[in-house]
This record gives sequence, C-alpha cells and structure tokens, in this order.
Amino acid sequence: MPDLSTVSNIDDLRSRARCALPRALFDFVDGAAGDETTARHNRADFDRYGFRPRVGRDVSTIDLSATMAGRPAALPIALSPIGFAGLCWPEGEVLAARAAARAGIPACLSTNSIASIEDVARAVPEGENWFQLYFLKDRDWMMGLVRRAKDAGYRVLVLTLDLPVAGRRERDVRNAFTVPIRPRLATLAGTALRLPFLARSTRTRFRFGNFEGNPHADGFVSIAKHVSSLFDPSATWEDVARVRAAWDGPMIVKGLLHPDDVEAARRIGVQGISVSNHGGRQLDGSLSAVAALPDMVATAGDDMEVLLDSGVRRGTDILKARALGASGVLIGRAWAYGLAAAGEAGVDKAIELLRDEMTNAMMLLGEREIAALTPSHLTEITL
Amino acid sequence: MPDLSTVSNIDDLRSRARCALPRALFDFVDGAAGDETTARHNRADFDRYGFRPRVGRDVSTIDLSATMAGRPAALPIALSPIGFAGLCWPEGEVLAARAAARAGIPACLSTNSIASIEDVARAVPEGENWFQLYFLKDRDWMMGLVRRAKDAGYRVLVLTLDLPVAGRRERDVRNAFTVPIRPRLATLAGTALRLPFLARSTRTRFRFGNFEGNPHADGFVSIAKHVSSLFDPSATWEDVARVRAAWDGPMIVKGLLHPDDVEAARRIGVQGISVSNHGGRQLDGSLSAVAALPDMVATAGDDMEVLLDSGVRRGTDILKARALGASGVLIGRAWAYGLAAAGEAGVDKAIELLRDEMTNAMMLLGEREIAALTPSHLTEITL
Amino acid sequence: MPDLSTVSNIDDLRSRARCALPRALFDFVDGAAGDETTARHNRADFDRYGFRPRVGRDVSTIDLSATMAGRPAALPIALSPIGFAGLCWPEGEVLAARAAARAGIPACLSTNSIASIEDVARAVPEGENWFQLYFLKDRDWMMGLVRRAKDAGYRVLVLTLDLPVAGRRERDVRNAFTVPIRPRLATLAGTALRLPFLARSTRTRFRFGNFEGNPHADGFVSIAKHVSSLFDPSATWEDVARVRAAWDGPMIVKGLLHPDDVEAARRIGVQGISVSNHGGRQLDGSLSAVAALPDMVATAGDDMEVLLDSGVRRGTDILKARALGASGVLIGRAWAYGLAAAGEAGVDKAIELLRDEMTNAMMLLGEREIAALTPSHLTEITL
Amino acid sequence: MPDLSTVSNIDDLRSRARCALPRALFDFVDGAAGDETTARHNRADFDRYGFRPRVGRDVSTIDLSATMAGRPAALPIALSPIGFAGLCWPEGEVLAARAAARAGIPACLSTNSIASIEDVARAVPEGENWFQLYFLKDRDWMMGLVRRAKDAGYRVLVLTLDLPVAGRRERDVRNAFTVPIRPRLATLAGTALRLPFLARSTRTRFRFGNFEGNPHADGFVSIAKHVSSLFDPSATWEDVARVRAAWDGPMIVKGLLHPDDVEAARRIGVQGISVSNHGGRQLDGSLSAVAALPDMVATAGDDMEVLLDSGVRRGTDILKARALGASGVLIGRAWAYGLAAAGEAGVDKAIELLRDEMTNAMMLLGEREIAALTPSHLTEITL
Ligand SMILES: Cc1cc2nc3c(=O)[nH]c(=O)nc-3n(C[C@H](O)[C@H](O)[C@H](O)COP(=O)(O)O)c2cc1C
Ligand SMILES: Cc1cc2nc3c(=O)[nH]c(=O)nc-3n(C[C@H](O)[C@H](O)[C@H](O)COP(=O)(O)O)c2cc1C
Ligand SMILES: Cc1cc2nc3c(=O)[nH]c(=O)nc-3n(C[C@H](O)[C@H](O)[C@H](O)COP(=O)(O)O)c2cc1C
Ligand SMILES: Cc1cc2nc3c(=O)[nH]c(=O)nc-3n(C[C@H](O)[C@H](O)[C@H](O)COP(=O)(O)O)c2cc1C
Repeated sequence: MPDLSTVSNIDDLRSRARCALPRALFDFVDGAAGDETTARHNRADFDRYGFRPRVGRDVSTIDLSATMAGRPAALPIALSPIGFAGLCWPEGEVLAARAAARAGIPACLSTNSIASIEDVARAVPEGENWFQLYFLKDRDWMMGLVRRAKDAGYRVLVLTLDLPVAGRRERDVRNAFTVPIRPRLATLAGTALRLPFLARSTRTRFRFGNFEGNPHADGFVSIAKHVSSLFDPSATWEDVARVRAAWDGPMIVKGLLHPDDVEAARRIGVQGISVSNHGGRQLDGSLSAVAALPDMVATAGDDMEVLLDSGVRRGTDILKARALGASGVLIGRAWAYGLAAAGEAGVDKAIELLRDEMTNAMMLLGEREIAALTPSHLTEITL
Repeated sequence: MPDLSTVSNIDDLRSRARCALPRALFDFVDGAAGDETTARHNRADFDRYGFRPRVGRDVSTIDLSATMAGRPAALPIALSPIGFAGLCWPEGEVLAARAAARAGIPACLSTNSIASIEDVARAVPEGENWFQLYFLKDRDWMMGLVRRAKDAGYRVLVLTLDLPVAGRRERDVRNAFTVPIRPRLATLAGTALRLPFLARSTRTRFRFGNFEGNPHADGFVSIAKHVSSLFDPSATWEDVARVRAAWDGPMIVKGLLHPDDVEAARRIGVQGISVSNHGGRQLDGSLSAVAALPDMVATAGDDMEVLLDSGVRRGTDILKARALGASGVLIGRAWAYGLAAAGEAGVDKAIELLRDEMTNAMMLLGEREIAALTPSHLTEITL
Repeated sequence: MPDLSTVSNIDDLRSRARCALPRALFDFVDGAAGDETTARHNRADFDRYGFRPRVGRDVSTIDLSATMAGRPAALPIALSPIGFAGLCWPEGEVLAARAAARAGIPACLSTNSIASIEDVARAVPEGENWFQLYFLKDRDWMMGLVRRAKDAGYRVLVLTLDLPVAGRRERDVRNAFTVPIRPRLATLAGTALRLPFLARSTRTRFRFGNFEGNPHADGFVSIAKHVSSLFDPSATWEDVARVRAAWDGPMIVKGLLHPDDVEAARRIGVQGISVSNHGGRQLDGSLSAVAALPDMVATAGDDMEVLLDSGVRRGTDILKARALGASGVLIGRAWAYGLAAAGEAGVDKAIELLRDEMTNAMMLLGEREIAALTPSHLTEITL
Repeated sequence: MPDLSTVSNIDDLRSRARCALPRALFDFVDGAAGDETTARHNRADFDRYGFRPRVGRDVSTIDLSATMAGRPAALPIALSPIGFAGLCWPEGEVLAARAAARAGIPACLSTNSIASIEDVARAVPEGENWFQLYFLKDRDWMMGLVRRAKDAGYRVLVLTLDLPVAGRRERDVRNAFTVPIRPRLATLAGTALRLPFLARSTRTRFRFGNFEGNPHADGFVSIAKHVSSLFDPSATWEDVARVRAAWDGPMIVKGLLHPDDVEAARRIGVQGISVSNHGGRQLDGSLSAVAALPDMVATAGDDMEVLLDSGVRRGTDILKARALGASGVLIGRAWAYGLAAAGEAGVDKAIELLRDEMTNAMMLLGEREIAALTPSHLTEITL
C-alpha cells in the first residue's frame, strides 16, 4: 500500500495517479474538452475570490456538517458520478462508496459504472448512496435503471443534463483511448511504476454494470461512440418531468449553467440543481461553474438547493462556494485521483485533505459554522 | 498518405504542416507581421467570450447551413484566399477548391495563386468558386482578371483592400524567404520528414498562374518586392466603385476594421464586407478581427453582410462570430495547414474538424440552428 | 565570512540563504500556506502601485526617521518576529537584535525563539527590543512570559492573533520537516555549499528558549503539532483585553486584515495594529496585506498606528506602505534570509539594502521626508 | 563589417549587441533599475494601444517630417543622449552624430560622453547637434559646458532633471561594472564572438571628453560613484531658470513624469519637455512614459512641445506617441544597440528600421501625414 504521509493536497494525489495509471487512462480522467480552457477557468475563477479573515474569535470547535439534497451530511461534499471509475482500481465504485460512507457523505454512482447499481448497494448498504442517470434512447432500460436504483435503496436521483453528446476530449482522440484499456508497451516502457496497475488489472473484467443484457451497449469503442449510440440528444424538460414523476425521492438535475434552466428546473419541482460544466469535459468555452454560481443562486431563490461541481480541488474552494450560496459541492476528479493512486485509502485521503483544509480555513477565517459564511467573507481580487 | 485519425484539431494540422514543409515556407504561411501581437490577439480575443449553454432541449438535428455573399452554403465557412498555396502541395488551389466543393462551401482563389483562374475553374466546375482581386498598378491586367473570372464562371468577387503594401513579416526577412522555394540543406538536415515534400516539389513548376505574360511579374524575389512592384497603393474608394461597376455579380470587400469604411462600402453598394486584419500579416498592433466585429456589425445594419476572417481555428470561434452578427467566416491558415499536411485529404480534414466542432458545440449549447445564435449566448470572461 | 559586495537586493540574500541552508529549513523559512497564492499576491500587489516622481527639488538630504509603536526609530522598519530563527544561525535572535540596535530600529523576539527572552535582553541591552506573544493554552505560562519580557526591559508587546492553528505549509509536509533539523544526506549530497551550516550546527543545541521547564513543550515534532498542543484557538478579544491590562507599555496586535477587527482593537486600546497575513503562511487565499491596507488605515483613523507586514522586500514597498498610511513595516523573511546567508552581517546587509533603496527612491521621487508621502505620490498601474 | 540584411527589427540589433559586447558592458546599456519593472512597462504599455486602420485611401506617398524643439527634422526621432556610448565602439558618439545627420535627424550628445563637445562638432559640422546637460556640483564647469556647446554650434540644450542620484542598476552591481571596461576572461571565454570588440578596444582610450581637466572626474569607479561625486542633488527649478537664462537657443527639459513639473517647466519658459523615466534606469516602479503621456500633453497645452522617450523600439511606438500628442521621440537603447552591433552602419540600420516601420504603418493605417494622427486612430486593447 503506497505511503500517503507526504501527500499534502489533491494535486499530490493527481501526481500519484499520473504515475500509477497508463497514460491513456490518466488522460481520460484528467482531460477535458477542446483546449481545456473551461477546465482551467474552473480553477482560476476560484482564485479570483479572496478571504478577509477575522481574528480574536473562539474557533476551538468547527462544525462542517451540511444538508445536501435535503439530507444531512457530515461535510458539504458528495462524490460526483465518475463513469468507468472501476477502470482505475478494481471495484473502484464500491471502494469509493465505502470511503464516503465512512466519512458520512454521499457517493453518487454513475450510469456508466463498472459495478452495477446492485453491486454497490449490496457492498455498502450503510452508505448514503445516490444514483446518477443519463437520458438513454432506450427509455425502457432507463426507467428500469430508475426502478433498480429505487429497489436497491438509493436515496437521491441525480439526472445529468449536459451530455446530449460527448464533448470533444482531444486527449482521448490522440491516445486513441478505448475501453477495455490496452496499455501500450510504448507508454509503459521505461518505468516500473505502472506494474501494480497491470497486476491489479488482471483481477478485473471490463463490463458496464448497468447495461448487462442491453443489446446496444456492446462493441464499445470510444466514449464518443458509446454516448452517441446509447444517449438521447432529443430529451427535453418534458422528459425530465417524466423522470421526476417516476422517482419519489429527492432529485437533483446536474449540469446547469443558465438561469433560464434554473427556472425550468423549478417548474418541474426538483430538490436541487448542480451548477456544473461537467469538469470542463463538455463545451469548451463555457463559463466556469464558480463564475456562473451567483446568478444561479439568485435565480434559485430559497425553494431549491444549489450545489456546485467542476474545479473543486481545495477545502477553500468549498468554503467559497458556500459563501456564494451553494449548499455543498460534488467532487469529481479529486476522488478519482485518490482512487487511482491508492484505492480506498486514496479516496479516504482525498476526503480527509478537503476536510482538514476546510477546518483549518474556518479556524483562520474566524468562523465556527459553515452556515455562517456569506459573500461578505470574500473579496474579489485582481490576478 | 498520412494517417489523420489522431488529428484532433486545427492545431494538430499545424504541427503536421510544420514537420512537412521546409522551415521558410512554413514560416511564410504561419507567420505574421512585426511582433505578431495582432495574430495572437486574433486568437486570444475569441477566448474572451464564454458560452452560457442551455440544457433539456431537443438537439437531435443541427442545421449549420448559411448564406454567404447572398448565396447558400452548407456551412458558414469559405476558404479564404491564400497566395502561393500551390507551393505547399502541387495543384494546391485545385485540391482546395475540390475539397470545398465536396463540403458545399465556397473556395476563394487568390490573385497570387500558382494555378490560374482558368485552371481551377476547369478542374472544379461544380464548385462555388470565388475570385479574390488585389489592386494592380496595371489596371488593364487587373480588369482582365475580372473578366477572366467572369468568363470562367466565378460567382463572387472578393476585393482585398488591406494590402497597399506588404506587411513587415519578419520571419520572411530572417529566413530570406524567396520564391521559388530553395529548401536549404541546413534546414532540412537531420530529418527525413521533409523528403516527401521534396519529392512532390519536383513534380511542379513555379509560376504565377494569373500573371503569365505580364512583364512586371518576372524576377520575383520576395513578397515585399512582388507587392511593391505590382500592387497599387494609391487606390481609393473611387477605384473600388469602378471595380464594382465592372463586375455584375455579388462582391465582397475584404480587410476592413473601421466603421467609417463600412459606410464607404455601403455607399458603393457591395454584397458584404469581411472584417479582417489579414490574419495579423499586415499592420501589427491592429485590433483583432473579433474585437472589431460588434461595431462593424452595428454600422453595417441590415443591408450588408458582415463576414469575418483572421484567427478562426475552432468551430466555437465560428459560432461566436455568428452570435456577434457575422454571416460566416473565411478561414485562411486553417485550410493551408491541412493542405500542407496532407493535400486534398488535409483540406477535407480541416473542414470536417470545424464542422464537427460546430455541430458538437451547437448540441451542447442547446441550439439547433446557427441563425438562432445571438449575443445573449455569450458572456464576457476575464482571462 | 561570505563576501556580500555583489548582493544587490533582498532576493540575492534569498538565493544565498537557499544555498546555505538544508532544503527543509530553507523551505520552512521561505514557504507559505497552500498554493502560496497569498504569498505571491503580497508581492504582486505592491507592483500595482506606480510612482509619479517630481524633479527639480532639493533632495540633498533625506530623512527616513519614523515613529513606530509611539517610539522613535531611525527607519520605518522593525524586525518582525521569526520563530526558530536561531536554527538558521547559532544565536540568530541575538545577532538580529544586535544588527537592529546598530541600525536604530526595533527587533521583535518571537515566542518561538531559540534564544530566551532573557538571553537577548542580556546580550543586547542597548536595543529597542520588542516581544511577540502567542495565546497559549497555559495562561499562567503565557502571563509569565509577559512578566519576563517586562522584567527584561522589553519596550513593546506584540500580540499575534492570526495563529489559532498553524497554516497548512505544504512544503513542510513534503519535506517531513521536524525540529531539531536532521539534514538528510540526500538533500546535502553533491554539494559542499552546506558544509559551513553543518559545522555551525554542531556549536548549537536545539531548545525553545521561552518554554524551558514547560511540560507541554517537549516532544516537538512539527510546527502544526507544536502549535496545536500549545496554542489556544479559543482566545477572543476579551482575552486580548486581559493581556492589554497586564502590560503597561505600548502594545501592538499583529495579524489583522478586517476593518471590523480594527474596531475591536480600538475598543481595547492598543498602540497600533499590524496589517498582515503572516507572510502568506496562514490562510492561503487571504487578500494581500497591501491590498487590505487602505481600508484598514481608513478605519483606524488617527488614534491608532497602522503597521504593515507581509511581502516587504524593497525599500519602495516601504515607501508605498507609508504613502498609503502605514507608520512603518515589519520585515520577516527579508532579515531571515540575511541571517541564514551570513549571520549578523547578513542582517546588517538586509537593513542596509532597504535603507539605501528608500533613500534612493526618496531622492528620485523628489521628497525629503517620508512623512510627506501621500497617496497622491502613487498611481495604480495595470499589470 | 557584419551583414545586417537579416536584421529585421531593433530587437535583432539588441541580440547582435549582446553577442558583440562584453557582458558587463551590454548589461550596462541594456539594464535598468531595481526589478526592471518600469523598463518592462515602458514596452508593454505601448502594446495597450491598438490601431484601427482605414483602407481605400491613396497612400502612395508618406510624409514623416516633423518639428522637434521648434526645428525641422526628417523624422520625428532624435538620438537620445547615451553616456559612455564611446565605450561600445571607438568614436561612438561621432559615428552616431554622422548617421543622424545623414538621416536628417538630431543627435544629442551626453554630458557623459567619451568624445568631447568639440570632437563631435568638429567631425560632424553638418549635423543637427544637440547637447545634454546634467546639474553638476561644480557650477562653473557646468556653465562652461553650456558655453562650449554654444561655441561649438549646438542647436538645442537638453537639460536632464531625473538624475539627482543614479538609479540602482543591479546588473552593474552584480557585474561589478567599472569603467574603463576590463572584460574578464571568464565572461569572454568559450566564444570568439567578442574578439572584434577587444581588437577595436585597443584603438581607443578611455576618458570623459567633457571633463578633461576637471579635478573631481578622476578615479572613476562606478556610475553611482561618478554621479554622486559630480552631480548636484540639490538643484531646483530656480537653478533650471538660471541655465535657461544662460542659453539663448531652444531648450528642452528631459525626465518629467508629473503634470506639476510641466507647469514648472512652462513657468520657466522652455521649448519643450521630454516625458521620460530615463528608460527605466532611475526609479523602478515609476509609471511608464507612454502611460504618463496623455496627462502631460493635456497639461502642456499648445505653448510647449512634448517629446517622449523610454521604451521606443518600433516605428509603431512612435506613431502611437504622435497620436497621443507627442511631437516626436528620443530613442536611446535603439541606437546604442545598433552602434554596438555594427558601428555607424548599425546606427544607420536602427534609423532605417524605424523609418521603414513608420512608413509601412502609415500606409496600412491609411494616413499620409503623421500630423494627421490623433487619439481616434488608437483603441485601448486588453492584454
Ligand atoms: C473521468 C470522469 C468521468 C465522469 N463521468 C460522469 C458520469 O458518468 N456522469 C456524470 O454525471 N458526470 C460525470 N463526470 C462529471 C463529474 O461528475 C463532475 O461533474 C466533474 O468531474 C466535476 O469536475 P471536477 O472533476 O473538476 O471536480 C465525469 C467526470 C470525469 C472526470
Ligand atoms: C500564406 C497566406 C497567404 C495569403 N494570401 C492572401 C491573398 O493572396 N489574398 C488575400 O486577400 N488574403 C490573403 N491572405 C489572408 C487570408 O485570406 C486571410 O485573411 C487570413 O489568412 C485570415 O486569417 P487566418 O489565417 O488566421 O484564418 C493570406 C494569408 C496567408 C496566411
Ligand atoms: C520562518 C518564519 C517564522 C515566523 N514566526 C513567527 C512568529 O513566531 N511569530 C509571529 O508573530 N510571526 C511569525 N512569522 C511571521 C512574521 O513575523 C511576519 O508576519 C511575516 O514574515 C511577514 O511577511 P514577510 O516574510 O513577507 O516579510 C514568521 C514568519 C516566518 C517566515
Ligand atoms: C546606456 C545609457 C546611457 C544613458 N546616458 C544618458 C545620459 O548621459 N544623459 C541622459 O540624459 N540620458 C541618458 N540615458 C537615458 C536616455 O537618454 C533615454 O532617456 C533612455 O535611454 C530612453 O529609453 P530607451 O533606451 O528605452 O529608448 C542613458 C540611457 C542608457 C541606456
């Protein structure tokens, strides 16, 4: 098991993941669409907000607990759905759910997971498990997934709307990335670093857990092809309303950047939205999630929760999102890097780093409860 | 034939072109004037506009068709005139016109082409062929070109106004660039990459297709000398009016950046203008084409088309130009890189990349028709 | 003794320190919290202010004398408290106090010094010695330190409020930095540069001068652990008032960035405050000291002095702080680099550089007295 | 004689100079004060202005002639005074004056020249020779210089006010730069490039042409010492008035950045001022010359000429200065690089490059006379 004691932040986990994974797989996880400008803005725009800390306040105890999708969580963090996470480490989705459960936070399973809905529910029954749904052309199969999630005890349905088509992830084109992964000798040569990955790979079998038996899900070649053969680009808010009707628990729509879509979500009556550009993996040039946040919060008003994902790498990012009105965040690559670096312990580490960073920052900000954070704790800074 | 399957964007084609061409020729195509700041701004200023996408909308079919110069085109793209394109690949102008015809878009032949007006018309009669004119001191020859274009069936005349003198392209000075190209052993040494170029070169003969028989066009030494001996720096809008009178089809004036010149163009009665700084190859320090666009569109009003060229490398650039009021764009280096990299297949690839990027971005923007794009789809972002 | 004649600025001293110290110790001194963005802003934000100099004025004599904490100083500079300074050079705190005394400026001893309160007072009785206090869980010990400082003749008490917990200094985590320093062969190998440091180290014994006999101060492992076991994160402004009552000389509270805390300080009745983010070592993302300064000065009004620390590396930084309303600055790393580079002579050099830079800049600004500097001498410049 | 045919801009001349000169001498010419931020802003701030060119205008002839210091010049350029220019090439000041005379522009001789007032006048009697004066402690010697300049036929007196003390040029400190130059073997080793310089050096003798016989000018060690022993930091505008009274030709005061000093200059009655920060060599952090220009022009009104120096490297810089209201510019390093690179031919080349760049840019701007340039030709661009 790798020694994580000198890992001091999420970026260190990313470096570990880069060494551990075959290049094409790392690039699949790490990469984004087009010139990756949106992915960079996702990070840089957090840095535009500075803190104005207070001193001389009792910060001996810090309360980080939050409510997300109307349900209590130990931290304002949920694990965002990561398709193919099981490629990074055998049983990846299960390990992640277990780490999340241990930390008292939700883990959202992707439609495109290796482990099936039932696999995760069975392995981590104590977890706050959420299920993420994509619009499938095959509506029967899709509604079947909703039922399976319900039956397996998933608490929250997350419907992702920003993927009518796959974004143009150019690293994947250059790497000719396909699943199952066939690490090329060329990329592996010269380094023994990836041997553990290869060894682990032999223990696992590639499959799409949630599509077993589905005739269209065979012959997987690339993400783009997978999406275009299975996903439905014609789905509208009416279709969203239908899913809403079929699920009686809390529901989140994920992937919104436009205030008009907040209105649309409100009309349908969801628990909340996630302001997101899919980590910069869809439309390059979209504005960053944190830049979009204030308008989205203003439009959402008090009747809907606003979550944020895309670009979160630091505990301070999460506090900034809270100060700007988000209930919490979904983290994507942050936990995927951890998983790829060290399996379950890596996901633990990712969560621990963010928690410790939040605690530390709260103490230094002079605030005890994250609920007390407001825009007045921030100041815009010129870069 | 080079394998283009891992080419994921225009910049990849540029890298291929860089390897394929002798240094001096690549620099001639790639370079710009002075410190190349305008060329950089042409790119960077597109990045100042972000998208605010919508979700939950039926984007199963996307319509990219456009009207340019009052004529229908499958895409809002025309191939911009590139002088000496035939140096990059034998029959370069013909191959480009063929690729454009296949894609259903216009190809504009330069005054400074290797292939003559008649060569291209004869080889690609099915194409939407446009002809680009420069002001020549020898007005008889110039009016002869207009007539030859008419007789050969060219549809649109593009009169380029921003070249009363050649810009100071310093790479050409440093490389002592002259035509015909004499690849120096020094620049070729150490690499077998350029052997295919040399092999192809033997199949072709350097000439100026449109100047055969013209006494002033001999003894070509450098772009600067070529321009100063043939082109007329004293031409005014009155001269433009005379050309307008001599051509009874649609006419575009190319190379405008100032609203006052939009008025001048309107007075003369042209079909449209192209907002352009000649790809940054003329006056370094000029503002970028996309930065100039909004004022130009406002001045043009509804009675003239506004096209844009200079800096277009991405499908999203084209959508931004459309959202800001342009009918379409002319692409210059984008197709020249393709041609230099892989001949006709490279031009196909360049067009295909831009089309696919546009389709993808439209789907992710939640819009089906490019005509629906407006400034409200954009948001200014701080870099 | 190293030849310092070609050392032309503080950054040169930093380079010397980098060569002289074991990597982990240099990183402890040089490093900051998180991504070190605040540390960078501390520098960059000084550069946002430009000067508009005057000419044709008699600048044959320049007066740099100032009042800090209500007491006269030859320069508007005090040596800021640097914990563990004695690790950089044997007797580091004593040497620094001696250099400060020679220059006619205050030296502030840290709670976390190697030399004790009494050591420094005994060795440099002629100095303007200040003592810096942290809030200790062990209030008896803490009040004992206050009494010891009083008894030893310290003039000013500096109470640091921005360290309820240690900031996350990631270089220290990566280096597994612990005290006493155990320079690893790995980091020392290949260079003879650090031999003098090793030689000097044998002459010194690690201890916390001010905690001898304190039962909690043993078993030191890392800064973070040291702070969390000894320091009190529950201290409030009421506790500050108690310290204020126990000390009858001038008192400064250090580490403020928020105007509301200026009000709090005023209510308690201190001589002054130091606007500071602890050199970027506490909450990464905090706004820079100089960016915070104008609001803090405006809130302080005329009844309290405003000092500034964090980021001062240039005489011109000090003049800018003065022009914006600060009485003077505390320098931290600037003198620590000097000490690490060349012992007492290095601290002399640091002070000399800043003095000479100030004199030169005053002459070139056309002002004779630093008291004459106002915001009108500055102009904001776009970077 | 070096082949200058591939030199395409001033920066190429700088590269040549860098190779030709001993490191310490190149750094003396190229360097600036402190962190050299002002020197960088001098360049970058020109880039903040973009052009909006016009087309369709007769630009077959371009008129670049200007009036500077009330006297006609072929170009809006004068050679700025460069102390020690004669170190870069034997007879450097004479060669420069000759090149300027050939181009029909003024050359300003520095107080700190190697060649004396009389040397230059004798060698280039046909030139438009100007003389630059510093305030000397020895007023008799200083007034003697004024008389010598008058007697030798100099046309304009340039009084430099921004050097009451030398700026802190840190490269000089690091290089331990002293005059006469003693090129160190270390810096010369490994390259034969500087042999021509050494060969030429033997032909020349170091002296201060204008201080021969002056007792204080001996024992020269460094610029800083030279200035502090000879120059007078107590000179005021009253002293300027005295110089003004002693010289009955046109007079320019050089080195102003503050509008209040424009008023002071007007009160004394000079022909013009030069907005300048001495090429960034004096107070680092001063605002750039071009950023200061608009306010200075506004204050100067119509009764005084405004020149600009500091940062001019491009013909387009000069056009921008003109558009913002300057009558012309002084170029410093631009010609010094040329001189160091190739002697007189290098100065010719520097002037030729700027002239050709201006002509080209005027043609592309669509203007025939530089007098027609106004702020409306410019547009502010975001970098
Ligand atoms: C490798 C990878 C796979 C992803 N798969 C899915 C998915 O299957 N479903 C989904 O809704 N989002 C998916 N996302 C998007 C994430 O849920 C999340 O929106 C994004 O990662 C947030 O940005 P961050 O990585 O900067 O935190 C994926 C992201 C990555 C990096
Ligand atoms: C190598 C090259 C040759 C060109 N020759 C011509 C030409 O003959 N006539 C013309 O009107 N424009 C010419 N242009 C300008 C292009 O038509 C177009 O305005 C410019 O390339 C657009 O910028 P882009 O390359 O960034 O797309 C040329 C451009 C390049 C790069
Ligand atoms: C190595 C180091 C140790 C420090 N120790 C203390 C300390 O013990 N007490 C304190 O109040 N501040 C301490 N500081 C903060 C400094 O007093 C000061 O606020 C900071 O260094 C100012 O920023 P500068 O280094 O950019 O000048 C320390 C700073 C450094 C770099
Ligand atoms: C090497 C050098 C020596 C200089 N000597 C003088 C001088 O003797 N007198 C003077 O007024 N300015 C002197 N200057 C300043 C120049 O006259 C001019 O103000 C400055 O070089 C303009 O900036 P630029 O070099 O960016 O054109 C000197 C500049 C340099 C680079």
